[in-house]
Amino acid sequence: MANNFGKRLNNLRRELASRGLDALIVTHAPDWYYLTGFTGEAGALVVGKGQCTLITDGRFTTQAKDETSGVRIVKHKEGLFKEVGEFVRRAGMRRVGFDSGQMTMAQHHALKKATGSRSAYKSANGVVLALRTRKDEQELAQMRKAAILASQVVQQAIRLLKPGVRELEIAAEIEFQMRKAGASGAAFESIVAFGERAALPHARPSAKRLGKNELVVLDLGAILGHYCSDITRTVYVGTAPKRVREWYKAVLEAQTAAIAAVRTGAACGDVDAAARETLASYKLDKYFVHSTGHGLGLEVHEDPRVARGQKARLEPGTVITVEPGIYVPGIGGIRIEDDVAVHEDRSEVLTRAPREFMEL
Amino acid sequence: MANNFGKRLNNLRRELASRGLDALIVTHAPDWYYLTGFTGEAGALVVGKGQCTLITDGRFTTQAKDETSGVRIVKHKEGLFKEVGEFVRRAGMRRVGFDSGQMTMAQHHALKKATGSRSAYKSANGVVLALRTRKDEQELAQMRKAAILASQVVQQAIRLLKPGVRELEIAAEIEFQMRKAGASGAAFESIVAFGERAALPHARPSAKRLGKNELVVLDLGAILGHYCSDITRTVYVGTAPKRVREWYKAVLEAQTAAIAAVRTGAACGDVDAAARETLASYKLDKYFVHSTGHGLGLEVHEDPRVARGQKARLEPGTVITVEPGIYVPGIGGIRIEDDVAVHEDRSEVLTRAPREFMEL
Repeated sequence: MANNFGKRLNNLRRELASRGLDALIVTHAPDWYYLTGFTGEAGALVVGKGQCTLITDGRFTTQAKDETSGVRIVKHKEGLFKEVGEFVRRAGMRRVGFDSGQMTMAQHHALKKATGSRSAYKSANGVVLALRTRKDEQELAQMRKAAILASQVVQQAIRLLKPGVRELEIAAEIEFQMRKAGASGAAFESIVAFGERAALPHARPSAKRLGKNELVVLDLGAILGHYCSDITRTVYVGTAPKRVREWYKAVLEAQTAAIAAVRTGAACGDVDAAARETLASYKLDKYFVHSTGHGLGLEVHEDPRVARGQKARLEPGTVITVEPGIYVPGIGGIRIEDDVAVHEDRSEVLTRAPREFMEL
Repeated sequence: MANNFGKRLNNLRRELASRGLDALIVTHAPDWYYLTGFTGEAGALVVGKGQCTLITDGRFTTQAKDETSGVRIVKHKEGLFKEVGEFVRRAGMRRVGFDSGQMTMAQHHALKKATGSRSAYKSANGVVLALRTRKDEQELAQMRKAAILASQVVQQAIRLLKPGVRELEIAAEIEFQMRKAGASGAAFESIVAFGERAALPHARPSAKRLGKNELVVLDLGAILGHYCSDITRTVYVGTAPKRVREWYKAVLEAQTAAIAAVRTGAACGDVDAAARETLASYKLDKYFVHSTGHGLGLEVHEDPRVARGQKARLEPGTVITVEPGIYVPGIGGIRIEDDVAVHEDRSEVLTRAPREFMEL
């Protein structure tokens, strides 16, 4: 991996040069991991011409030295952004980029105060994220593994769905199985929603017990070797009423249409529209209250947004989720989600679990 | 709980009045949970005279209606901060507070753009957090339960420490046991560090197997009923060398001294100094690379900081961790951590697990 970090830093330096920036302050942990391999949670990375400096605190300096190579590690004492600002001043950097979506007002204030008036800070948003969006073969190989792990765990969880079991017990099992299979953790708090609670797109697992004749939504993801996966399956415990079968069929058709729209050069909004129009043809689009998907990688939500009207175009190496769903208050919800990688000439569904309607 | 939310909102309104603010924009999830009970992850709460409005997106509106009472729920369509800014403008609020440590530059920009020039945004940091720092009896009761849960789980985990077991397996068991005991999840990624890895204060669980004659650091916390706990124990697998016993004795003495310094009116820096000076008397302070503790509550790290020179004074209702440690690169680390509540006339250790040196 050491070689890849060097290549990524150089890609970033080229981008900075093209924007006329002397340096970029990287304040987002997945970004500095991507560039250096440092897995600590606190710090700031300053990438400039011919140098890369990580400023962090005493909890992380030993770890930073172990995890990185060619990176200067500086321990700050009196406040991270004061130290970063003084570093910029001493290094004589004139035009320094930062991400205004990743820096608080308070941090920016501390930074400017410590730097003084000789340097100008310029908003340069999403620069590292744009690099991260085009995953290399090594990253895609890792994401395949993370997706397969999540696919196995969701299938194991479905086998545990018996009337009387609690949402929280299933959630605990899901996270336990992910860890056992080598995940460093869950990519997000697993969603296990029974019956009416399945109508809440982001329900937290509760003490509710599974009844007879209920929809169950399971939405989970694993972090494996730093990369995230994200999968959702919906099943019915009991014999489903006709309208639930019809709803499921519509959601599956919407997802299939959206996956078919994933290709290099397609606008993200077109992928969203493929799902939304399918649901509209069943008069179910009013129940589809979120967007079709999101980018996936070192973070479980990253660029691009696969949402209504989004003009960003899919590029080779991008991985997105495709997850249309419908939510009928008081009754339940249905969502089906898979992870899809974009290649030069094709797309690839990374998750591998049956999508057919299941009645348990 | 509904009654408490009303009381908290009124406490906040009094604080806003004393600062001459018409409203506060609350952009931090634990803060809006504290004020309204809303557990969703995205949104902004605007609290003003006689009104409380939550602006969120379609994923959370049903949930917000279920979880809150007396709160107006608004669904935004084109961007959260655009909607918030327009709401402020329409409501004619003139002086509006926000937390500069909880708002990014980009959010602030969107807000100001949507509001126009008739309203002024004023930095008002930590206003809700200051209320949260003084926990009421109901909150303390919940924190006792969370602390006892973590205490039980750390003792269960110690029993699993046999040569050959992997750090990741112990971490998986810890999180599984927390869930089984009713926790909604871990308060943070559990630390399970064997041998040399125990010298990294924030080591992530790895595939490393436990050897003979190694230190083991276990640091974990549970979220129970929204409140966090945090406990660390260090044990030795094998028969410890004399210097390890001496180190342990010094850390335990430092922790005992710091806990004894916890009382209403004490400066946080004095609690830190009690630990640091004890370690200095053993010439071990150079290995104590972090601060003595931090506030604990709805978040696992909140105010106050229990660190060198901190002048903030402990108040009744505050809960802090007391967790001195030493880290000897290449050899290992020792940390002992408990959660301590401050009362009017005494302190109370909430965690309940033996602190004596254990050789397994």
